[in-house]
Amino acid sequence: MKYYAAIDLGGTNIKSGIVAENGEILSKASIPTGADREPSLIVKDMAKALELAAEKAGMSLDQVESIGIGCPGICDSENGILVYTNNIPFFNIDLRTDINRYLNKSIPLYIDNDANCAAWGEYLMNHRDKKSLVLITLGTGVGGGLVLNGQLYPGFNGSAFEIGHTSIVPNGLRCTCGRAGCLEQYASVTALIRQTAEIAEARPDTALAKKVKEDGKVTGKTAFDLARSGDWEGIEIVTQWINYVAEGIINAINVIQPEIVLIGGAISREGDFLLAPIKKRMKYDVFTAEGVAKTELGIAALGNDAGLIGAAFLGRN
Amino acid sequence: MKYYAAIDLGGTNIKSGIVAENGEILSKASIPTGADREPSLIVKDMAKALELAAEKAGMSLDQVESIGIGCPGICDSENGILVYTNNIPFFNIDLRTDINRYLNKSIPLYIDNDANCAAWGEYLMNHRDKKSLVLITLGTGVGGGLVLNGQLYPGFNGSAFEIGHTSIVPNGLRCTCGRAGCLEQYASVTALIRQTAEIAEARPDTALAKKVKEDGKVTGKTAFDLARSGDWEGIEIVTQWINYVAEGIINAINVIQPEIVLIGGAISREGDFLLAPIKKRMKYDVFTAEGVAKTELGIAALGNDAGLIGAAFLGRN
Repeated sequence: MKYYAAIDLGGTNIKSGIVAENGEILSKASIPTGADREPSLIVKDMAKALELAAEKAGMSLDQVESIGIGCPGICDSENGILVYTNNIPFFNIDLRTDINRYLNKSIPLYIDNDANCAAWGEYLMNHRDKKSLVLITLGTGVGGGLVLNGQLYPGFNGSAFEIGHTSIVPNGLRCTCGRAGCLEQYASVTALIRQTAEIAEARPDTALAKKVKEDGKVTGKTAFDLARSGDWEGIEIVTQWINYVAEGIINAINVIQPEIVLIGGAISREGDFLLAPIKKRMKYDVFTAEGVAKTELGIAALGNDAGLIGAAFLGRN
Repeated sequence: MKYYAAIDLGGTNIKSGIVAENGEILSKASIPTGADREPSLIVKDMAKALELAAEKAGMSLDQVESIGIGCPGICDSENGILVYTNNIPFFNIDLRTDINRYLNKSIPLYIDNDANCAAWGEYLMNHRDKKSLVLITLGTGVGGGLVLNGQLYPGFNGSAFEIGHTSIVPNGLRCTCGRAGCLEQYASVTALIRQTAEIAEARPDTALAKKVKEDGKVTGKTAFDLARSGDWEGIEIVTQWINYVAEGIINAINVIQPEIVLIGGAISREGDFLLAPIKKRMKYDVFTAEGVAKTELGIAALGNDAGLIGAAFLGRN
């Protein structure tokens, strides 16, 4: 059995793990990212998180085939350089060199965008029979990854399948990336929370406003829970948000026409309540003809582990 | 030298040609499509157009390596079946079998979407050094083709890179494909003509309205000609239209991050007047980082012949 070490780098935590070649996660560790720190301190803690995970798995890092790192942002995967992240002050950090230096080793090290890693993990674990797979993660932002003919699609510019940064509204909301109208501003869970909070504030006498007051906060579940109980505001918010999600997914399908699209992120636990309306829209709005094979839509099955498993297996790309 | 026969099937004309392996077009022929006719009559004339082109080139169809056909609509390229076209009443027509039957031959026959053919032609003739190429055609509609790692990208559902049918305006104009807000409804030359005609009608005392009256018609050049001379309405129409085109191109880039994007269609003759504002938008809105290789933007150099050459070379995919 071969083993792989991995890091899923987030704005909040550096999650690490040792993954066996069959996809089993032997151990996990986590160190707070401390995203406002000096980059070198964060990179040191990434090395430490790898050692911790190896220790928990009862092995040495000398026993792993490679280290894989999933990062938010733009990666130069060929050279192992994290070019840019939005939430962590990394700018052209040579992770391949630096992490091996902190570990005092020379282990093959691969990096890629976190959504790409999640797509790669889902492909290898659950969909190796598919010629093309798109994964769209709905969370703080909207990420995407594409696997084509058994390979993670790299793109030319250090990023690819940034479906979250396609515009769906002319002169729409300004995105953190600088562009206007990005899908991410409408179809992320951050957007859903904003949309929910806005309606709750505008309509203080509704069940929604009362729930928000009782809960003391708005989450991605707030509107979904109300919608399931038949509440008007819940249905209105969820319907609009799902329509934005569907717009992004159908745009992705009409461009790539992949064999399968998977939705990832915690919100995907809403299951058929989320999928059914998107499938209905797909029936009418996907550009294809009767009698032609149709793109499948599903939920990412690995959940929060997809990124870690996919990162671990970057060395198998 | 190897030779290839090709058809560029349009709603108005069946254009045929014999193309040498170096890309030289030895002969061209054309027969009116007569799109309202019985499909079998159109297919018969496609066979006839191939014979005419061969005759003009002073050869027999027995001398060609293969026949390639570029079709508007959805193709089952694997089986040589034209599944569906918008403007011609074709539904599941087996071109591979039927055309060979009319020719009384058994020549390898390949079909693909016309925008895909144009992308393939541009790639083979001018951009074989590129890892990834996107071609976007602006005409009656908005088409797209993608060449990845030296191969025309096929998609899973008989179509791919249908960028014209990605939505850029929520609940926007209804498209012929059934979807709302499709790029094609805003960034095609048909849309430019409609936008020009609307402003001309709404502002009868403008230079634009006078020009439309004098010309007796609105074309894709009407607003561009006025804009070049500094006319307010011309600039307004062209600026808005180019922004829609840019939105589509940047969406395509953020998804695929190709090495080069080419604009095809007669309107691409507007050259830098069209390209410069798109490049400016790309500088800010393409999702990438400083210091990372950037996607190039250019004009499709083969012009109206790209589709014919690309179709001819389908047998080389």
